Amino acid sequence: MKLADLPTPALVVDLPTFDANVGVMADRWPGPRLRPHVKAFKSTALARRLAAAGHEHFCCATVREAEGMAAAGLGRDLLIANEIVGEAARRAGALAATARITVAVDSAATVEAAASAGIGEVLIDVDCGMARCGCTPDEAGPLADLARSRGLSVRGVMGYEGHLMRVPPAKRQQRVAALGPVLRSVLERTGGDVISGGGTGTWLDNDWATELEAGSYCLMDAEYVPHAPAFGNALLLWTTVISCRPDRAVVNAGLKALGMDHGNPVVVGAGTCGYVSDEHTTIVRDPSVPLAVGDQVALVPGHVDPTVAYHERLYVADGDDVVDVWPVDLRNW
Amino acid sequence: MKLADLPTPALVVDLPTFDANVGVMADRWPGPRLRPHVKAFKSTALARRLAAAGHEHFCCATVREAEGMAAAGLGRDLLIANEIVGEAARRAGALAATARITVAVDSAATVEAAASAGIGEVLIDVDCGMARCGCTPDEAGPLADLARSRGLSVRGVMGYEGHLMRVPPAKRQQRVAALGPVLRSVLERTGGDVISGGGTGTWLDNDWATELEAGSYCLMDAEYVPHAPAFGNALLLWTTVISCRPDRAVVNAGLKALGMDHGNPVVVGAGTCGYVSDEHTTIVRDPSVPLAVGDQVALVPGHVDPTVAYHERLYVADGDDVVDVWPVDLRNW
Repeated sequence: MKLADLPTPALVVDLPTFDANVGVMADRWPGPRLRPHVKAFKSTALARRLAAAGHEHFCCATVREAEGMAAAGLGRDLLIANEIVGEAARRAGALAATARITVAVDSAATVEAAASAGIGEVLIDVDCGMARCGCTPDEAGPLADLARSRGLSVRGVMGYEGHLMRVPPAKRQQRVAALGPVLRSVLERTGGDVISGGGTGTWLDNDWATELEAGSYCLMDAEYVPHAPAFGNALLLWTTVISCRPDRAVVNAGLKALGMDHGNPVVVGAGTCGYVSDEHTTIVRDPSVPLAVGDQVALVPGHVDPTVAYHERLYVADGDDVVDVWPVDLRNW
Repeated sequence: MKLADLPTPALVVDLPTFDANVGVMADRWPGPRLRPHVKAFKSTALARRLAAAGHEHFCCATVREAEGMAAAGLGRDLLIANEIVGEAARRAGALAATARITVAVDSAATVEAAASAGIGEVLIDVDCGMARCGCTPDEAGPLADLARSRGLSVRGVMGYEGHLMRVPPAKRQQRVAALGPVLRSVLERTGGDVISGGGTGTWLDNDWATELEAGSYCLMDAEYVPHAPAFGNALLLWTTVISCRPDRAVVNAGLKALGMDHGNPVVVGAGTCGYVSDEHTTIVRDPSVPLAVGDQVALVPGHVDPTVAYHERLYVADGDDVVDVWPVDLRNW
């Protein structure tokens, strides 16, 4: 099948760009030094390519992701890099019978949830300044002791410096580096040998993670490329023009095909994005580019993760040829 | 099942509020005067309740929606209120064998697509000032003639005043009313007897639509209620606290559970929304409200349509009881 024959809207992965992104990251973070975060693509078919590139340990944000990865034979070492309680913890505990499951904990309640559910292994999640989940560095040691007293194995610490991903490079390097002594000192108190952290935005700066939790680098998006320019946009939303005037064109994909929290998509070649509505994107035309109803226009999504979560599949393209289809089989909860 | 037992994140419909919304709208726009827009909820189970309330003709934004409605026995009169070409037109044509299908056209190319695909009926889509799809009023008559020459039946015109939904009430009424003479005059030139248009925001102002295309009113959202305060928020995202500090709490739902183009969700009772990330919403706590890991917190989504499109099902609640589950069976394309 050719790209021009795709039913639209269609989310397309440019395979050469994807492969280049995987290669660049694997050079710096080879094998298990990288723990790819499946939340960014939610596809076991894509994850299988990362495993083939040497990365066989994965991060998951949800239990659904972990269940799907285990069912696909990719459950060798799955970190649910998130606090879970209740039904989610029970499901993760059931999964621990057939896959290696580690969860993040940052409180007595999440330690208790993991222990009760039969999840054997934990990382102590430390807030590195992002002010989301995570205990303070001082709380980490006692929490590790509590976990061990409840029969859990403490593999180490997790510290995610998400608030630094978009800091300008010079300052970013300094601020990321400053976290190293903190987390190494925490690790001495928690026990274990893992410091899990980092992401696509700090892949060059992070010198303390024993495993990098990057995921966006595989596909990238319009917002992230300036912060990690070694990786190219491998993700395009393929659309069709349904209405066309001299000054504007409207394509058949909108808010239900695009994560919008990072702003509008970037229009490739045909003009600029005017506005996005439920099932439309209105393009302010570049007058030098001929365009007609039925023509295809590619958009670069603003944010990869919530974009992929709207779609059932990723069409994989090499040049003009659609060479594969990767189901987005890890979405929902 | 009780609300407290729901696996989270869960999208919940408050049934009494939903029923009240349906009743308020049906009083003003009864039976086929209302053509509910399924894009706002993408659920045939919900649509069936609207049919039971007397509204048996529906608007669809995508062919997928029309296919699902027809398969559910709700295909008595489906308007695809959008331009379609290529594969989408062919699918709509196939559907026209078993359901009544009308499509919007605004160009010779979309007329040709409808005729070639065997779609029998069209509305001439006229741009009312929104600057999205739609021909000019002057183009409508000749386009209707072209459609008839290609064997299509012209049912009338469609004019969607989406740009007026959020205009302050006094000015809105005036500007909506001013469109009446324009569209009635266009209808004389196109032939047919339908003027399809309007929405939840103009339900009180629009005095010219023979059928109102409202959908959001059923469930509503945080952004829309101020513009149509007769309708209440019937849609809540039910979440669980996974991390809790004195100043903040983090719940287990984020960008992949919430349409974000209209901004952050509103937190019910526990504080205010700090920020939303892929699978988290961080809440700035109200210090007077006790909160702990495992507690449930409800969020009112910012925008109903792209929120529902992330979910597999709507849990229907009456008080604390979950009384039904409505699959979101019309999402994707």
